[in-house]
Amino acid sequence: MSAKRVFIVGGVAGGASCAARLRRMDESAEIVMFERGPDVSFANCGLPYYLGGVIEQRDDLLVASPERFRTVFNVDVRVRHEVRAIDPGAKTINVADLATGSTSTESYDVLVLAPGAEPVRPPLPGIDSPGVFTLRSLEDTDAILAAITQREARRAVIIGAGYIGLEMAENLVRRQMSVTVLELLPQVMAPMDPEMVTPAQEELRHHGVDLRLQTPASAIEMGPGGDVLTVQTTAGEHLPADLVILAVGVKPEVHLAEQAGLALGTTGGIKVDDQMRTSDPHIFAVGDAVEVRDFVTGQPTLIPLAGPANRQGRVAADVIAGRDARFRGTQGTAVCGMFGLTLAMTGASEKVLRRNDIAYQKSYTHSPDHASYYPGAEQMAIKLLFDPGDGRVLGAQAVGRAGVEKRIDVIAMAIQKGATVFDLEEAELCYAPQYGNAKDPVNMAGFVAGNILRGDIDVVHWDQWQQVQHHPADEQTPLVLDVRPPENVAAAAVPGTMKIPLGKLREHIAELPRDREIWVHCGIGQASYYANRVLRQCGFQRVKNLSGGITSFKMQP
Amino acid sequence: MSAKRVFIVGGVAGGASCAARLRRMDESAEIVMFERGPDVSFANCGLPYYLGGVIEQRDDLLVASPERFRTVFNVDVRVRHEVRAIDPGAKTINVADLATGSTSTESYDVLVLAPGAEPVRPPLPGIDSPGVFTLRSLEDTDAILAAITQREARRAVIIGAGYIGLEMAENLVRRQMSVTVLELLPQVMAPMDPEMVTPAQEELRHHGVDLRLQTPASAIEMGPGGDVLTVQTTAGEHLPADLVILAVGVKPEVHLAEQAGLALGTTGGIKVDDQMRTSDPHIFAVGDAVEVRDFVTGQPTLIPLAGPANRQGRVAADVIAGRDARFRGTQGTAVCGMFGLTLAMTGASEKVLRRNDIAYQKSYTHSPDHASYYPGAEQMAIKLLFDPGDGRVLGAQAVGRAGVEKRIDVIAMAIQKGATVFDLEEAELCYAPQYGNAKDPVNMAGFVAGNILRGDIDVVHWDQWQQVQHHPADEQTPLVLDVRPPENVAAAAVPGTMKIPLGKLREHIAELPRDREIWVHCGIGQASYYANRVLRQCGFQRVKNLSGGITSFKMQP
Repeated sequence: MSAKRVFIVGGVAGGASCAARLRRMDESAEIVMFERGPDVSFANCGLPYYLGGVIEQRDDLLVASPERFRTVFNVDVRVRHEVRAIDPGAKTINVADLATGSTSTESYDVLVLAPGAEPVRPPLPGIDSPGVFTLRSLEDTDAILAAITQREARRAVIIGAGYIGLEMAENLVRRQMSVTVLELLPQVMAPMDPEMVTPAQEELRHHGVDLRLQTPASAIEMGPGGDVLTVQTTAGEHLPADLVILAVGVKPEVHLAEQAGLALGTTGGIKVDDQMRTSDPHIFAVGDAVEVRDFVTGQPTLIPLAGPANRQGRVAADVIAGRDARFRGTQGTAVCGMFGLTLAMTGASEKVLRRNDIAYQKSYTHSPDHASYYPGAEQMAIKLLFDPGDGRVLGAQAVGRAGVEKRIDVIAMAIQKGATVFDLEEAELCYAPQYGNAKDPVNMAGFVAGNILRGDIDVVHWDQWQQVQHHPADEQTPLVLDVRPPENVAAAAVPGTMKIPLGKLREHIAELPRDREIWVHCGIGQASYYANRVLRQCGFQRVKNLSGGITSFKMQP
Repeated sequence: MSAKRVFIVGGVAGGASCAARLRRMDESAEIVMFERGPDVSFANCGLPYYLGGVIEQRDDLLVASPERFRTVFNVDVRVRHEVRAIDPGAKTINVADLATGSTSTESYDVLVLAPGAEPVRPPLPGIDSPGVFTLRSLEDTDAILAAITQREARRAVIIGAGYIGLEMAENLVRRQMSVTVLELLPQVMAPMDPEMVTPAQEELRHHGVDLRLQTPASAIEMGPGGDVLTVQTTAGEHLPADLVILAVGVKPEVHLAEQAGLALGTTGGIKVDDQMRTSDPHIFAVGDAVEVRDFVTGQPTLIPLAGPANRQGRVAADVIAGRDARFRGTQGTAVCGMFGLTLAMTGASEKVLRRNDIAYQKSYTHSPDHASYYPGAEQMAIKLLFDPGDGRVLGAQAVGRAGVEKRIDVIAMAIQKGATVFDLEEAELCYAPQYGNAKDPVNMAGFVAGNILRGDIDVVHWDQWQQVQHHPADEQTPLVLDVRPPENVAAAAVPGTMKIPLGKLREHIAELPRDREIWVHCGIGQASYYANRVLRQCGFQRVKNLSGGITSFKMQP
């Protein structure tokens, strides 16, 4: 039997992982990796930081060279080779050598597609103007850097406020540029829920970014000199820009797959089974181009992130080498940093749960990343989404300045193993004062969720608060009770708010109405939880806690 | 029915948590908390950092005052009250008011013991000399600070190199003191395995700490002036000291429990069931004084840490309030920092597994805390212990300068949920270049362990390396093969080492003996793993990988 010929199309995260893993599993296979660009296995997540000067050397972004793939993994790497067509019946591909223009037809036994995702280019007038860039490859980065220099660029407009848009905003601010971000949606970072990203929106503005939500670009015009662009918005504004970055998202690159007649999924990604096999048993697909199963909802989804791409590459390699590997789906764990602020999430968002009609309950907690008696503690907000029946954790989002991604990673492992909020209560995590808390933020999130599920507390959320905000303080409207210490209470936000500090609640309890619903709040929801317990046990039946307190209320979009 | 009278003896972590939780569950109970000292709920884990000046205000260490317990939780707090005896038959306690000296007898319905652990005081001559201190309470801290000032202390001898000993060493160095640490064992941080703490030992010495392992103190002598002490060691040395800190460990404070006839466990801690009930159904015990079940080994153990103490306090409160709560045991998750280095662990150590005759396999990995192409990445070492049959994670230890406790926290959650090394391979954790890696250190640990369990690789460990180090390079001795790139290879540590860089292995493979065992190594064990795969698939049967490479080898104690 001659050695198996395995062709891999695409040499970045998923393709590169697949090639390296396959070689470790099968020394005899003939592995050829075709890459349209000049580089394989480059650090695409690092591109914005190279543009911002944080990563100083371009070479640092080249994680593994074609030469390394050749010598270490005996992989025949063909850069600047574009696979133009697949003939699944004949098991051949047509490849163009971009350097010479010549094409050839080559036979495979197994084909792995790892084409990635391409930036979405909305049909805006002027979108192809010079000075308008997307960011996918090192070559894009080179072009942006060249434009910044040539144009002496001072003003950038970024269209789109997802991960890349925000990372680019931070990095162009690092370059002392004046940055405007236009976003179609009413929030940045669409995968997260709107209230969890308001700190990011404030942070961007605090650092001088002109963030305009619900403000799509409508056209890009080139000025008379040729260098200055003008971005028009649907609001009728004309924003001058030396540079426009288009970052409105990515879509699976499926041209080849479509041409080969491979099935696509409902999301538009290449359809694969849990062994990363496409509708053709000899063709696998991995990475940003494939449709995967959402681990929490069970629904098909697109998750264009490096971690899952790498794991998919491994699974495909194992299966090709005759092993029984499976991809368990993806949780959408993600993190984004800007100006020292960290946003992270894992599992399903509230939006996704609603869209899929999945029952859920939620809690908000605000906890210091480490013991507050040790200097430098920073408060983080955690939103926990969980099954209202059995308490299974469905998703979590967090935002803050320290220790945020740690808590999301712990909850990611919890979700992976089907843990409940009761498991989070019992999590035994590292504690010394500079690292955490005897009751870690993960424990606190579990406690509050557990309190809700055990019926120890009823909660209202920030989005229900308008019921008391804009209504006259009558008996049909819940009474708002603020239990913060007097020194922490500024003018009460809600007219008619009653103020009784927690420490005086028992002595003033007779002043509270027994025939009216009472909504209790404090700064973060903890003192008001204690107050809820006092009131509930003293016979007040209709008492609720503002989850996350005023801090969560202030995060409302 | 009159309100239940619940007495809590001890007002720090476990006792304070129990009081606060019980009040939330039962508004009508009469809760009295007796505390021998002047403070309740103080931050005992912060004491070393207050001594070092990191925590500047003494008040910052007072997490919740007696006044707060009274007003917020309606708990009758009696500080400077010592419970001297329990009459379980009569359900009474005898209490002394330390301020007045008067004693009284009081009746309880339920009693909760949270006396904590007391510093071990070995029977050394001179141990009661002025200037010799233990560190348990704020009063101890005050006394140490006073002594430092009065004695103009420049030289400290710390006896014991556990958590408190090391944290004290760091903080006294912060005070510009000259610090000697004496340790009976051949390693610091006894709960961890010896090779995982060598970086801490180096770090201490690098910062000028005179660390003497296997060097117990044999006596303490007071000098003629009264102020200068001399610590004698079993090695016959006489070490002058202005201050001696005794930190050789703690033992459960069980005087009261013994007097009351409560059962103690084999470890000497108060025996409790999983609802924290002692052998007397009306008496509960929580915190450092109780014997708990090790979650991994199932064996009784003592874990004097704040996290478990707090959870035990909650469980006892819930059970007293008529709920069905259980304490699941403890994993021994712990973290210690010194001079920017972090050591952390969760689950069983190799020592504990051996002692309990539990079968295990292990792996060592060295991974950067975040993408190495992003500035500031720091390598951490992870030791993973797992079941050689099903791959269940039994324990993990890590050491490094960044992101260490995050990975241990993720693995702590994995252990809690019975995860295997295969689950760690598939963990989906936060990745952006400043936060992590597409293949996170947790994934890497899982990959290597999985490779071992799937039989893709055989490993040798640093402690087997002596087989090739001190033997003649004959055919009975394994051949050592170093596959690092030539520029990374200094003089080979082992005589007769063959050097073939990984990239040239295939072309030089004929030079390798087929009838001799081959041990392959590189810097961290990754390139040598690739080499192992090449050799195994080319028919070399007896080839093994040095797990963790030279980096692990150099960590040997």
